[in-house]
Amino acid sequence: MKRRTFMAGGAAGVAGAAVAAPAIAQTMPEVSWRCASSFPKSLDALYGPLDTMTKQIAEATDGRFKIQCFAAGEIVGAFQTLDAVSAGTIEMCQSPGYYFVGKDPVLALMADVPFIMNVRQRNAWLYQGGGQQLVNDYVKKYNVHTVPGGNTGTQMGGWFRKEVRTLEDLKGLKFRIAGLAGQVVAKLGVVPQQIPGGDTYSSLERGVIDAAEWVGPYDDEKLAFVRVAPYYYYPGFWEGAPTVHYWIGTEKWNALPKSYQQIFNNAAAANNLDMTAIYDARNPAALRRLVAAGAQLRAFSPEILDAAYKAANEIYDDLSKSNADFKRIYEHLRAFRNEEYLWWQVAEYSFDTMMLRLRQRS
Amino acid sequence: MKRRTFMAGGAAGVAGAAVAAPAIAQTMPEVSWRCASSFPKSLDALYGPLDTMTKQIAEATDGRFKIQCFAAGEIVGAFQTLDAVSAGTIEMCQSPGYYFVGKDPVLALMADVPFIMNVRQRNAWLYQGGGQQLVNDYVKKYNVHTVPGGNTGTQMGGWFRKEVRTLEDLKGLKFRIAGLAGQVVAKLGVVPQQIPGGDTYSSLERGVIDAAEWVGPYDDEKLAFVRVAPYYYYPGFWEGAPTVHYWIGTEKWNALPKSYQQIFNNAAAANNLDMTAIYDARNPAALRRLVAAGAQLRAFSPEILDAAYKAANEIYDDLSKSNADFKRIYEHLRAFRNEEYLWWQVAEYSFDTMMLRLRQRS
Repeated sequence: MKRRTFMAGGAAGVAGAAVAAPAIAQTMPEVSWRCASSFPKSLDALYGPLDTMTKQIAEATDGRFKIQCFAAGEIVGAFQTLDAVSAGTIEMCQSPGYYFVGKDPVLALMADVPFIMNVRQRNAWLYQGGGQQLVNDYVKKYNVHTVPGGNTGTQMGGWFRKEVRTLEDLKGLKFRIAGLAGQVVAKLGVVPQQIPGGDTYSSLERGVIDAAEWVGPYDDEKLAFVRVAPYYYYPGFWEGAPTVHYWIGTEKWNALPKSYQQIFNNAAAANNLDMTAIYDARNPAALRRLVAAGAQLRAFSPEILDAAYKAANEIYDDLSKSNADFKRIYEHLRAFRNEEYLWWQVAEYSFDTMMLRLRQRS
Repeated sequence: MKRRTFMAGGAAGVAGAAVAAPAIAQTMPEVSWRCASSFPKSLDALYGPLDTMTKQIAEATDGRFKIQCFAAGEIVGAFQTLDAVSAGTIEMCQSPGYYFVGKDPVLALMADVPFIMNVRQRNAWLYQGGGQQLVNDYVKKYNVHTVPGGNTGTQMGGWFRKEVRTLEDLKGLKFRIAGLAGQVVAKLGVVPQQIPGGDTYSSLERGVIDAAEWVGPYDDEKLAFVRVAPYYYYPGFWEGAPTVHYWIGTEKWNALPKSYQQIFNNAAAANNLDMTAIYDARNPAALRRLVAAGAQLRAFSPEILDAAYKAANEIYDDLSKSNADFKRIYEHLRAFRNEEYLWWQVAEYSFDTMMLRLRQRS
């Protein structure tokens, strides 16, 4: 308050400002960054929160901390973003860690791997369970610092041309699915396929593949899979709660004033919450439209889920034997998950169970 | 970057700063607020996020936007916080809307009322479903602007000296429970009691009351209810996802620079997410300790839940007849809730169901 009054004092105010200004200028430098996203703009619920966050950061700093955003492929390919940040070509990227599973399976653990946990449990692990600290200690080797920045919620299990009820039905099934999830279903006889999102519809239509997983109702609707592969399976057991991270070059992060780091952290956390809210708000109506367009909802059978769970645990065991970092972080994550579900079944899950039952009679 | 280089230029730099400084000073004024919480400091998972948020706001503004925090009763009583903000005695408060249900039942809708929704659905309604906008349009009559700032997650149904299985068991039961939830159970024959938290243990011990609800394992453990009322019921059907809001005097809010408003909003949202993460991370171990200390977990019977649901809907119907604002906002909330659960049972709930089933065999 004093400062404002002083500034209004004409010449005396200007003289006063000349003394005070260097401190302000030092703590609020002009910073201009470039951020490459691993997502196309068409996935607006994924890309949108990056756009929103950077506008909020600019507003919070009176335009002094500017981050220019680029969609996947504009300046860096979707899977090359981490390399570009590591090398210092760009200051930061928006990517889910499992996009780099081929480079390093430990990075999948910070996003999501099959049969882990739901969104709130994931956030509890990251923010309050020591998870994000473990992640940041580990990713130092890539010369980056990471901040959680979004989550889609549990994804769907994908679109299938024919029903799959038994393990026998999975044998030889050509399924567009990537990463560790692809390795899990491969153990059940599925043939995982890597196909860009834009080519998936025509591959399904021509029968080049039998099934494809993408995200959930809101995003899936845009690609019109319902027309050619109407059996819509759930849950996406490989993505209960995928976290999208921001990855920032370590030197660039450390060079930020504390105030900008704080503004960045809270903008990322606020938009982490908001990305989930966007999906949660838009998925119900999209699901209604998909069902009206012919989508046939199907739950994966216990036979398939049990076998996939066993296969996933075998993969985690194998990775843990050969990779001490994977073992350490996976075991931390799994122990946290087991405790979470112990509590979950008491209050949260029973509340949802009650509401689902009561709604049917209201 | 230019500015920093320029500033290092000695005398020329100081002259330059004298020109640029007034703009900075105008956009970053010194602001000093007082915030009264409705919670005691002993409820550290509820009060803590306020403390954290205000420190983050100070850090983000290089100490220029300072908010001094006071626990319930230090400068304003727990239920007088809104009046104090409305009157301009203090700039803001941290309170759940249902603390003011006696003053105005519409204010309970912004926090939680019986049989509504879970945390993610509540956040989706507030941030992406138009809910927070409806709330802020309504609370203008109290000369305040509100920002969501926390959520405990689904609470427990309370501690009972004896088991309650049937509606008959509820007749005449003296239960410490407040607000609309108290009205709901009163319709089932319960006699709601209003007792300060600190007096609840001795009331239970002496048999002055038969049961008491508080929050959930982490907070309940501190009050040691397990020693005198070991039957621990779930779910707290009247608090599936209570939101804590920040309430700010309208003029004070409007006088903030846009940058401070942005910093405040994201700090509140980040700590909304974090409060839930704190509870989710701490409740499992607290529950284990309570069970080891003798807590007997019990689910409310369908007979009791069905009757309570019917009673709640009767209360909503009555309030809707006499209060057009309640009707309008309640119906918006209910319609959103119904759509949310339609989607929830597909991906999210089936993911949790799967994990609870598989965990038992791992």
